Amino acid sequence: MHNYQYYKKMTEEALEERLPRIDRRCDTLRKAMTYSLEAGGKRLRPVLCLAACEFCGQDPAFALAFACAIEYIQTYSLIHDDLPAMDDDDLRRGKLTNHKVFGEGIAILAGDGLLSAAYETMAEDMMESLTQPDQLRRKTLAFREIAKGTGCRGMVAGQVCDLEAENGGFGEDMLLFIHRNKTAAFFYASVLAGAHLGADPEKLEALITYARNMGMAFQVVDDVMDIKGEAEKRGKAVGGDAEAGKLTYPSVYGLEESEKIAREYIDKAAKAMERYGEEAAVFNEILDMLRVQIDG
Amino acid sequence: MHNYQYYKKMTEEALEERLPRIDRRCDTLRKAMTYSLEAGGKRLRPVLCLAACEFCGQDPAFALAFACAIEYIQTYSLIHDDLPAMDDDDLRRGKLTNHKVFGEGIAILAGDGLLSAAYETMAEDMMESLTQPDQLRRKTLAFREIAKGTGCRGMVAGQVCDLEAENGGFGEDMLLFIHRNKTAAFFYASVLAGAHLGADPEKLEALITYARNMGMAFQVVDDVMDIKGEAEKRGKAVGGDAEAGKLTYPSVYGLEESEKIAREYIDKAAKAMERYGEEAAVFNEILDMLRVQIDG
Repeated sequence: MHNYQYYKKMTEEALEERLPRIDRRCDTLRKAMTYSLEAGGKRLRPVLCLAACEFCGQDPAFALAFACAIEYIQTYSLIHDDLPAMDDDDLRRGKLTNHKVFGEGIAILAGDGLLSAAYETMAEDMMESLTQPDQLRRKTLAFREIAKGTGCRGMVAGQVCDLEAENGGFGEDMLLFIHRNKTAAFFYASVLAGAHLGADPEKLEALITYARNMGMAFQVVDDVMDIKGEAEKRGKAVGGDAEAGKLTYPSVYGLEESEKIAREYIDKAAKAMERYGEEAAVFNEILDMLRVQIDG
Repeated sequence: MHNYQYYKKMTEEALEERLPRIDRRCDTLRKAMTYSLEAGGKRLRPVLCLAACEFCGQDPAFALAFACAIEYIQTYSLIHDDLPAMDDDDLRRGKLTNHKVFGEGIAILAGDGLLSAAYETMAEDMMESLTQPDQLRRKTLAFREIAKGTGCRGMVAGQVCDLEAENGGFGEDMLLFIHRNKTAAFFYASVLAGAHLGADPEKLEALITYARNMGMAFQVVDDVMDIKGEAEKRGKAVGGDAEAGKLTYPSVYGLEESEKIAREYIDKAAKAMERYGEEAAVFNEILDMLRVQIDG
């Protein structure tokens, strides 16, 4: 097994190269898509996919096309999420958001292009296994996990409810639904896609429990850090209105209880991988990244 | 072989039923997606997919999930195309556009949901063939055609260039690129997806020529009708400014020459299917629909 940095580097070296070739007459589309792909980030989801594949017994290179597809989907979702009609953000990771550079029309299409590119990349990868039924079967399972986790039974549903919840009047049930769908479903799909490509039924079971809890932990930590970070920036007491209008864990449970909930999810995820010891190091590395955020 | 109305009805009866099940908490997403799906239209692309499948020797029911996926993609592209940042249309087929009813944020997500639903539907259909390698192989070929024709090597590329061409300064080469990508690529993919699912190599060749020319004819006829329709509506001479700013066949070649080009594409498409006589009736029925528009 390799470490986090290894899988991250592997993803970043392949991201542009695996994009479908775009005609030079459509250079604006290529530029808009790569602008956001190159904007950085932790590449957490493709790392999880590659790690799950290797953990389940396959060379991670076998999952590389799918890992890139996962990052294309993540990037599309951020571009659309930043649009004026959605979160209306001018900056992401210190850089201008896509629509601030290319305009809203091109930004919508760059998102559509990246979402489509994800499926094109998976489809082309599946073409390489046309004559190998077992490989094609495993890739189909991975493709299905990703489609399910990011569509209207997953991420898109979470986004819609997140947008609607800003109008208020929702409680715990909706909060859980939003976190499960907006965030956890895609983490789950990324891990499961890798696990299906790797194909080891016993380890798949452990990864399912890991993925469910790790994905939830990620969003709770994210909610908590938004509040803490915003409070720090404004130089006022923790518990500010960073997420005013948004339905978040701190807004429902308060900050302290939210941190407790996050720790519980992290512990459950860790427990699922316990018996694998060093073999599961990268999965624990990711949990440690989350622990440091709330405790460090 | 069945006729156009048969395949159209078959598609429309399956469209909602085949959508992934959306949680009741996300009812707005379901409503926004079905609002545009139910808005009607000719269902030309799914009809072509079903017809191509049956023409190539399979029960059209085998292609039904893919036909629905094709219509989900077509509907997503219209929702995004109508947005204020794109064509900014208030009406489509006499009904309010999606964003006029649900707001821009939900409309963007309804489009994302439909595009994702297309791949979810294909993936679920492929799951049914996991233990049948030949079926899975054919479905993979169909999935790849659709992803390629509608992504950044196809429809999305065409949309970007269409948007850019409004700034002027482009000529024949760009016009051809836009029409090929924005419109013809998806028609091609719809026909080829059906043909791969049907699996008859000789007929596949004929359908390739048919699809290439039919798709181009469709867009040229559409350009011509926009001018004629607009002129009629305004009660002035043919050749109005309906498409002012848009790069179209009439704007580059004039109306008469455009009609001639459309007829040439239609004739080439018809010639490709000539030797199949009655067996190819539905493909000729579609060409007749185009002929009537420019001649009738």
